[in-house]
Amino acid sequence: MKTVKIGSIGLGRLGYEHAANIATCVPGAELTAICDVDEAQLAKVQKEFDVPYTYTDVNEMVKNPELDAIVVVSPTPKHVEHITAAMNAGKHVFSDKPLGATVEQCKEAEKVVEAHPDQLFMLGFMRRFDPSYMDAKQKIDNGDIGKVIMVRSYTQDPITTIEGTLAYAPHSGGQFLDMCVHDIDLVRWFTKSEPKQVWGIGGVFEFDLYRELNDGDNVCATLQCENEAMAFMFAGRAAAHGSHVETEIIGTRGTLRIASTPAKNLLEVMSEHGVCRECYPDFLTRWHQAYVNEMIEFTNCVREGRKPEVTVYDGTAVNKVANRCKESFETKKMLDVIG
Amino acid sequence: MKTVKIGSIGLGRLGYEHAANIATCVPGAELTAICDVDEAQLAKVQKEFDVPYTYTDVNEMVKNPELDAIVVVSPTPKHVEHITAAMNAGKHVFSDKPLGATVEQCKEAEKVVEAHPDQLFMLGFMRRFDPSYMDAKQKIDNGDIGKVIMVRSYTQDPITTIEGTLAYAPHSGGQFLDMCVHDIDLVRWFTKSEPKQVWGIGGVFEFDLYRELNDGDNVCATLQCENEAMAFMFAGRAAAHGSHVETEIIGTRGTLRIASTPAKNLLEVMSEHGVCRECYPDFLTRWHQAYVNEMIEFTNCVREGRKPEVTVYDGTAVNKVANRCKESFETKKMLDVIG
Amino acid sequence: MKTVKIGSIGLGRLGYEHAANIATCVPGAELTAICDVDEAQLAKVQKEFDVPYTYTDVNEMVKNPELDAIVVVSPTPKHVEHITAAMNAGKHVFSDKPLGATVEQCKEAEKVVEAHPDQLFMLGFMRRFDPSYMDAKQKIDNGDIGKVIMVRSYTQDPITTIEGTLAYAPHSGGQFLDMCVHDIDLVRWFTKSEPKQVWGIGGVFEFDLYRELNDGDNVCATLQCENEAMAFMFAGRAAAHGSHVETEIIGTRGTLRIASTPAKNLLEVMSEHGVCRECYPDFLTRWHQAYVNEMIEFTNCVREGRKPEVTVYDGTAVNKVANRCKESFETKKMLDVIG
Amino acid sequence: MKTVKIGSIGLGRLGYEHAANIATCVPGAELTAICDVDEAQLAKVQKEFDVPYTYTDVNEMVKNPELDAIVVVSPTPKHVEHITAAMNAGKHVFSDKPLGATVEQCKEAEKVVEAHPDQLFMLGFMRRFDPSYMDAKQKIDNGDIGKVIMVRSYTQDPITTIEGTLAYAPHSGGQFLDMCVHDIDLVRWFTKSEPKQVWGIGGVFEFDLYRELNDGDNVCATLQCENEAMAFMFAGRAAAHGSHVETEIIGTRGTLRIASTPAKNLLEVMSEHGVCRECYPDFLTRWHQAYVNEMIEFTNCVREGRKPEVTVYDGTAVNKVANRCKESFETKKMLDVIG
Repeated sequence: MKTVKIGSIGLGRLGYEHAANIATCVPGAELTAICDVDEAQLAKVQKEFDVPYTYTDVNEMVKNPELDAIVVVSPTPKHVEHITAAMNAGKHVFSDKPLGATVEQCKEAEKVVEAHPDQLFMLGFMRRFDPSYMDAKQKIDNGDIGKVIMVRSYTQDPITTIEGTLAYAPHSGGQFLDMCVHDIDLVRWFTKSEPKQVWGIGGVFEFDLYRELNDGDNVCATLQCENEAMAFMFAGRAAAHGSHVETEIIGTRGTLRIASTPAKNLLEVMSEHGVCRECYPDFLTRWHQAYVNEMIEFTNCVREGRKPEVTVYDGTAVNKVANRCKESFETKKMLDVIG
Repeated sequence: MKTVKIGSIGLGRLGYEHAANIATCVPGAELTAICDVDEAQLAKVQKEFDVPYTYTDVNEMVKNPELDAIVVVSPTPKHVEHITAAMNAGKHVFSDKPLGATVEQCKEAEKVVEAHPDQLFMLGFMRRFDPSYMDAKQKIDNGDIGKVIMVRSYTQDPITTIEGTLAYAPHSGGQFLDMCVHDIDLVRWFTKSEPKQVWGIGGVFEFDLYRELNDGDNVCATLQCENEAMAFMFAGRAAAHGSHVETEIIGTRGTLRIASTPAKNLLEVMSEHGVCRECYPDFLTRWHQAYVNEMIEFTNCVREGRKPEVTVYDGTAVNKVANRCKESFETKKMLDVIG
Repeated sequence: MKTVKIGSIGLGRLGYEHAANIATCVPGAELTAICDVDEAQLAKVQKEFDVPYTYTDVNEMVKNPELDAIVVVSPTPKHVEHITAAMNAGKHVFSDKPLGATVEQCKEAEKVVEAHPDQLFMLGFMRRFDPSYMDAKQKIDNGDIGKVIMVRSYTQDPITTIEGTLAYAPHSGGQFLDMCVHDIDLVRWFTKSEPKQVWGIGGVFEFDLYRELNDGDNVCATLQCENEAMAFMFAGRAAAHGSHVETEIIGTRGTLRIASTPAKNLLEVMSEHGVCRECYPDFLTRWHQAYVNEMIEFTNCVREGRKPEVTVYDGTAVNKVANRCKESFETKKMLDVIG
Repeated sequence: MKTVKIGSIGLGRLGYEHAANIATCVPGAELTAICDVDEAQLAKVQKEFDVPYTYTDVNEMVKNPELDAIVVVSPTPKHVEHITAAMNAGKHVFSDKPLGATVEQCKEAEKVVEAHPDQLFMLGFMRRFDPSYMDAKQKIDNGDIGKVIMVRSYTQDPITTIEGTLAYAPHSGGQFLDMCVHDIDLVRWFTKSEPKQVWGIGGVFEFDLYRELNDGDNVCATLQCENEAMAFMFAGRAAAHGSHVETEIIGTRGTLRIASTPAKNLLEVMSEHGVCRECYPDFLTRWHQAYVNEMIEFTNCVREGRKPEVTVYDGTAVNKVANRCKESFETKKMLDVIG
């Protein structure tokens, strides 16, 4: 089968992860081009993975006729612009989450994707490709836990990375957009229903910067879905124990929990602190295999002409809910999800 | 030190637990009298524990001059009436939760208690006397987890007791009052703050009876407290795995979880189902030690003339929040806790 | 039913535990007399539990006609002397483990017990009365794990109590007798077979005192039983994480583990050390309920004229194996268990 | 850096795993040739991974001048023959465990390796490349648990693969050689000492075939090392719960456990069986990442001219101990490890 030649946009922390995965762990894919404004980083990554082409301009890269697909890992506000450029140049596109910075941008992306029905588009909700989450989804679809009653999902970053978190905060779109989009996607995936009402709350417990940003350093959102299923999300930035993303699905016949003990491996340490499991130090080590798996799936979709499961419409739906959570937090009102 | 002679009202499931504990596991206490309308049960319990006096009428029992204290484990709507009778007869009183069926009843109880300042009153929020919860409270008060950000608390009954649950449902006061009062008490205890806004949601996922009762078989409530701390509660009636009460306290410096794996003992079973921990079969086995401990504390308070920590005002405050959760569920609105 | 009046010998750490349990948590039992050479401790315990009689001489106490039963918690070398005195005085006897300091003493105890067939004798292998161990035993007897292949059992004391451990070491009879007797009893209980070959090994990894005592600070013994079942035991004195007694039973259809994670309660702590469960600080807190349960069983046996399950012969059999383990350790040879 | 062109011998279950890993997950390696007597399997694997060359004769393959290295995954009795052929043809060699079927074969391998000092040789003790084991090793080397007192290591295959296990049993070399070599390697790795005395025991609890083979279906071995450290190993063939390899290292300052709960991912299932973690279905899924990691290490060693950590002498030392365990089992004697 044909090798898929990929050009990847953005070489930040996550961009580098994707580039490295494409270059070394995705059978059938080749890292053919990379694009970033940071030329030193460009040169470094080119050398490390022997990348044929480098670009500082996205519009130049998408013109390269050798490329089959573009992977977008640029800053959120640029996503839709880059998706558009790539789609219009005839490339398949994988974009990291969230789809856009605003619902309007998401709608634009929908139009571009619809205008190129023969090109694939896939959105990077990588949790759906994590082995534990896949296992849970399969059990739910098998009916093992009956009807889904409630989904609880936490996204917690470790205190050890707080400095970078604070630096990025003003550009992040806020906690509900930056962190909860993953949880909102999971709620929709596991309940097969759309949130219809939201209440977002939160507080500034430690980092005053969030007050200036009209945000909380720790926030929650409660959702009621159209099919009566309920959901609760918590996002925190300074967990003492490490990167901790946990999801629970309570059903009428059983309950599933993913990463309730977010152990990074199978080691237990017995010491003066008791019997301890150490946690993942950051989100990249937590999700490495999921990032690899989603890129394998994207590559296989391209090779087999198969449509990816995660669509552009999932991106819009998630953004819509995240925005309403933020608005609820700001106005201190419970809100309907409209439109 | 003097033995505390106790008369106990109500010999249902929990009433029997209290009577048996007083008779066999509470140093310094004596089960001197019991009262129930079911004469067969009265005779059986009298014989089992050699109880000197039996009554079918509360007003008769409280006149018994030998008795130092009355334990009230009657149906919720009768609590305040029995508290009043006992207090007016000069007895110390321990009452099971909730304090009353309505906030008005709670206010009545407050007046009666205030009118007898030399008699003790204690409310049975037994979770505060469970070793795991006591350990958590101490760590929080020590500052081990910094500032409390969020409390999550679940109360789940097992599917195996669903028949009794459904029979009792019409008399229970509804899920928020019957189940969540414990969780609300914990939120107040751990955050040291009062809930100021609530949103109660839920659904009928399996048992249509709850729809007739204008209730849900599974319900959630989200709370925002005056000090910005947040809380989330879930109450379910049909957990496949057993009785599962779990509480989590997320702080700025660490997180505590109680019964995240609600194992009934230290046994792990490795079988074709994997590595499993079995759960408590019902709430009485789960809380046995806590029930013993709270009665020991009540007895010691009487003997030492010490005021119990859990006051009549805690009872009113909890009821107020539970009622607003129910109202929020019924009106589908987020509500302020007022008054 | 008649109250069982008990005289208890020995008020050391474990003796106090038994005395307190009899006085406060054992329905149908009364702590009627206590005996110890330490008069200050005698006076203190008498006052705390309102004990009618005190003695400094065992031979005086056993003459007290009010007493129904004697509980022996004296130092190991005195066990058989005290059992004999009590039996000869017509009392029922509960003795703590091990039965005696030598196999010869055990044989003596057998003769005394056989000479008084109408009096009960029970040996204090309290692990058999721990809820987790009882649960395991029942599952094995139900056939849940098929045929027993292997039993692994660890006995580890915490480093925090090392001072007392070292002080007691010269009088303890050595690790195999002092610690492994519990594990040997469990091996026999779970496999329903007798060990026929043993190999005891060990080393001095930290505390030189043990070298002087011709012992190891950490020792192991491997056993092969008559029915081919295997067993492995480990005894350590300085566990960083707390008191840790763990037992595993591997069967042809499943495996059971007790206290693989020796958590003292249901609390998990998430901190910079990961996700941790704290352990029991010492053996008394670990086994409190088991100590209560075995005394309840002894009391009920006396009241109901029922023979206890743990017999004097269990005591001899266990001592025999422990002694051979020690001999194996000293001679560096694998040995048959004979006689 | 130069791509390492690899020819792989053997396409059975594990051989296929290695071939697939080289072809898809090992940066810098290329699966250039494969060799097997089963021509249908050869053709299938060639097609799946686009392999340039196929062979049915090892001696032909090693002549291929394009190949840099040979990976030996043939049946154990052939290992040394294939290692010799490859070494003599000037290739670097990676061989799966055990090094040989006998200690004599191992000594032969040593000579061949010594005769080609410029070619690399690496033995496939893949557990050393599993993230949990690597983490444990690092903590031990850091001194986190003080001095190593005891290593316990279990190797259990699941009941679900028993049919293949029984078919292979007569050719496996017996439980001690086939299964315990991994555990013996770990004991040496973690204690940094050599076993000096062994006692192997076992029984036939279910599968009579093992009796015919003068072996046990479940066996144990206890080891005493030269530095006084102790070790205990258990090997079983029919675990109800899945593939379960567990290792514990008890030190003077702490204890480490790997896979005490051998969960295959981070999912917990709450059902009528309690709170359960599912296990790995077979050893290939358990060790996939370790197999990838060891091949990455081998490839990097070749590219960088670095000597692998696991040497031919490790292979001989492990075989020697495994053989003495078997001899101990057969003679029912505790034995010294000699020579």
